[in-house]
Amino acid sequence: MNKIITLGREFGSGGRELARRLAEELSIEYYDKEIIAEIAEHTQLSQEYVKNVIENTPHSLFPITIGQTFAYSHDYTIKQMQTIYKAQDEIVKSLAEKSDCIIVGRCADYILRDKDICRIFVHADINSRLERCKERITSGEQFTDKQIINKIKRIDRNRARYYEFYTGQKWGDIKNYDFCINTTNIKIKEITPVIAKLFK
Amino acid sequence: MNKIITLGREFGSGGRELARRLAEELSIEYYDKEIIAEIAEHTQLSQEYVKNVIENTPHSLFPITIGQTFAYSHDYTIKQMQTIYKAQDEIVKSLAEKSDCIIVGRCADYILRDKDICRIFVHADINSRLERCKERITSGEQFTDKQIINKIKRIDRNRARYYEFYTGQKWGDIKNYDFCINTTNIKIKEITPVIAKLFK
Repeated sequence: MNKIITLGREFGSGGRELARRLAEELSIEYYDKEIIAEIAEHTQLSQEYVKNVIENTPHSLFPITIGQTFAYSHDYTIKQMQTIYKAQDEIVKSLAEKSDCIIVGRCADYILRDKDICRIFVHADINSRLERCKERITSGEQFTDKQIINKIKRIDRNRARYYEFYTGQKWGDIKNYDFCINTTNIKIKEITPVIAKLFK
Repeated sequence: MNKIITLGREFGSGGRELARRLAEELSIEYYDKEIIAEIAEHTQLSQEYVKNVIENTPHSLFPITIGQTFAYSHDYTIKQMQTIYKAQDEIVKSLAEKSDCIIVGRCADYILRDKDICRIFVHADINSRLERCKERITSGEQFTDKQIINKIKRIDRNRARYYEFYTGQKWGDIKNYDFCINTTNIKIKEITPVIAKLFK
């Protein structure tokens, strides 16, 4: 069995950076946005469309349908979601078979639940996440703290909804992870070698 | 500042064993039941009484009092609880000042919240905890699985209630810890050197 690490993360927690640095430190593969690209290739849908379906559904799967047109469009959305999730499931499994790797998000902890993997969840308090997001803002962009916090909450709400819909589990619940790491007031660069020791 | 680790744990998760082994591996002090003994000495109450107050209150702090006798007894209980918690608060702070150590339970993560500490929470699924409890049963004792599971749940309910009452925080919520460690299907002896690396 390969050394497989899955990493879920709150937006702005530095989880993605930790995953990237961990992969580098452990000399293993790192998969994140690459999976969206692969899903697009598998399903012959555009990357933008796949990203949109993943990030914005399921908002409401059982709306009160008014007239047949809406019902058809609703069925179509569900089918697209199923196609995309099926591709995601296959890709994640095949990446885990291929070599040691770290997979960010994509319900990988659930998809690989029967394998001997290490499931990490990274989180931080809201101020710490706000500061991290502000550091990433490129010059020219102007956002208030309130706007950034609203964005953090919206993205996390979508991640939670997506995860819970496909796994039936609560996103960010300690039960579903082997290690939950709090990155409040922590520099990811500094914590990486410490966390890497867990896998050496 | 000393190297201070606080460790909260679900009953049967092996958290106490992990704390003991970690202290040994890191050559630092280990405090667990010793704190009860110190509280008893400070308050001049018996260890048994202190243990009982800690493990069984607050069941209901604001009952509908019927007549004055009950009200007096209720006031007395609250005063004893306050005395015991105050002693606990002072002892935990003084242990943390003294030397590097690991402190099990006792709301130490909250009491030392203004210090630079590492807060661990150890948990496991119910089957894994059941198995650990069964291993500890001495010959002659006979319990059904259901009885053991009920005991696990009762103890954890009390721990959660105690922690939440004094800290205003949710026991076992990832937000309150730096590392949450899942010990499901894991031998504590084997995971200890791995976790110890985080502190070396």
